[in-house]
Amino acid sequence: MKQIESSKNEQIKQWKKLHKKRGREKANQFLIEGFHLVEEAVRAGIQMIAVIVTDEEVIPSSWNMDDRNIILTNDSVLKELSETDSPQGIIAVCTIPVEQKLSAEHGRYLLIDRVQDPGNIGTLIRTADAVGVDRVIVEKGSVDLYNSKVLRSSQGSIFHVPVIKGELSNWVDELKTAGVPVFGTSLQNASVYTAIQPSESFALILGNEGEGVQTDLLDKTDQNLYIPIHGKAESLNVAIAAGILLYHLRT
Amino acid sequence: MKQIESSKNEQIKQWKKLHKKRGREKANQFLIEGFHLVEEAVRAGIQMIAVIVTDEEVIPSSWNMDDRNIILTNDSVLKELSETDSPQGIIAVCTIPVEQKLSAEHGRYLLIDRVQDPGNIGTLIRTADAVGVDRVIVEKGSVDLYNSKVLRSSQGSIFHVPVIKGELSNWVDELKTAGVPVFGTSLQNASVYTAIQPSESFALILGNEGEGVQTDLLDKTDQNLYIPIHGKAESLNVAIAAGILLYHLRT
Repeated sequence: MKQIESSKNEQIKQWKKLHKKRGREKANQFLIEGFHLVEEAVRAGIQMIAVIVTDEEVIPSSWNMDDRNIILTNDSVLKELSETDSPQGIIAVCTIPVEQKLSAEHGRYLLIDRVQDPGNIGTLIRTADAVGVDRVIVEKGSVDLYNSKVLRSSQGSIFHVPVIKGELSNWVDELKTAGVPVFGTSLQNASVYTAIQPSESFALILGNEGEGVQTDLLDKTDQNLYIPIHGKAESLNVAIAAGILLYHLRT
Repeated sequence: MKQIESSKNEQIKQWKKLHKKRGREKANQFLIEGFHLVEEAVRAGIQMIAVIVTDEEVIPSSWNMDDRNIILTNDSVLKELSETDSPQGIIAVCTIPVEQKLSAEHGRYLLIDRVQDPGNIGTLIRTADAVGVDRVIVEKGSVDLYNSKVLRSSQGSIFHVPVIKGELSNWVDELKTAGVPVFGTSLQNASVYTAIQPSESFALILGNEGEGVQTDLLDKTDQNLYIPIHGKAESLNVAIAAGILLYHLRT
């Protein structure tokens, strides 16, 4: 076990760079905070470079943590490394896992087209996990998955479901070839979602908060769906829409 | 039309106090930002003390805005008054509307029990609006409804649906007396939500992010419901759960 007492420590300075996307990409590492998230990462077998704590007692022996990877520090150093207002006393430095190579096959898919808000992306992944989606495909150019807000709002689900980046246009083609029905979401030229029968195999595309799903993708789907708006709201939040549609398609 | 060029202006300093709950309560005023939200407030007949813009052209004549209430300013003053990183050029100072006195009667109700996150409260209100809920009742002691994050995530729905603060325990009693079936949400001793038939009159209670609905309330309901978790997620976000349940109960 090492001890770090100063926030000017070179190692702490290096790890602080992981707050930024560029720093994460360069080091191929990311930070997670809080007992729950670190535990989920341990269970998922995410490789940890270091676990930084203010009290070593918080680390359960069941984690089988190598003592050399544990760093004991004080509140002010931890606060320096934290991205939240009230740090929970534990931060882990993890290696970004190698993305799985997956091909289109029978199963449940959530396709995320250029969603911008990190909280929405995290909540989409958490919802997909809850409903038993097999794979989440995120359009290249979406917000970085190892952004702390994505991780926090995913509540660990990012370690449960395979989440990969890809070209949605190619994925739609391959899923259709594999016989997986692909549903877009759109307010125009769409069917009410309750008209669709639940199924064990489907792909659902959700889109950008302001613009929705790209027209090029909507043109390729088997069918596009909408959720009726009964009140005066103009639309639903993208993650709310995903929850309603996924639970309907699955149940 | 007035002009304000300095962020040291006394009026701007006073309005900045509306960023805090205490300031809002003292002045009985709140701030809203961005064209869309201000437009929703205008349509809802919310009383405006002032509309502060960097370009008077953004105010449509259809708003029938009294010229004396329009304040022209520069980007730096607007940024000072803004609570977002990228202000959209328009902020309105509004009077907090008098809360409607409502009694329990036939209709669709969403009851919110001690939800803490402002974004969740706003999204709950937006979702309730979309599904056509008639009234939202928020437990006293929940986050302030005129918090900027609540307003932003409600996307204007807070001006569409009556949202009132109250004692949920009394409301549950009164709703039951009025013949409105009341559903709690709980992972224990609950029925799967799909077992419930849609209806024109119901009340649904959603609870605190960590603790869920209080036991005292769960004991009083007609029935408690759960949403099955098929994957490894421990739970759903509270607003996602509300979306799934409300759309099921209504459809």
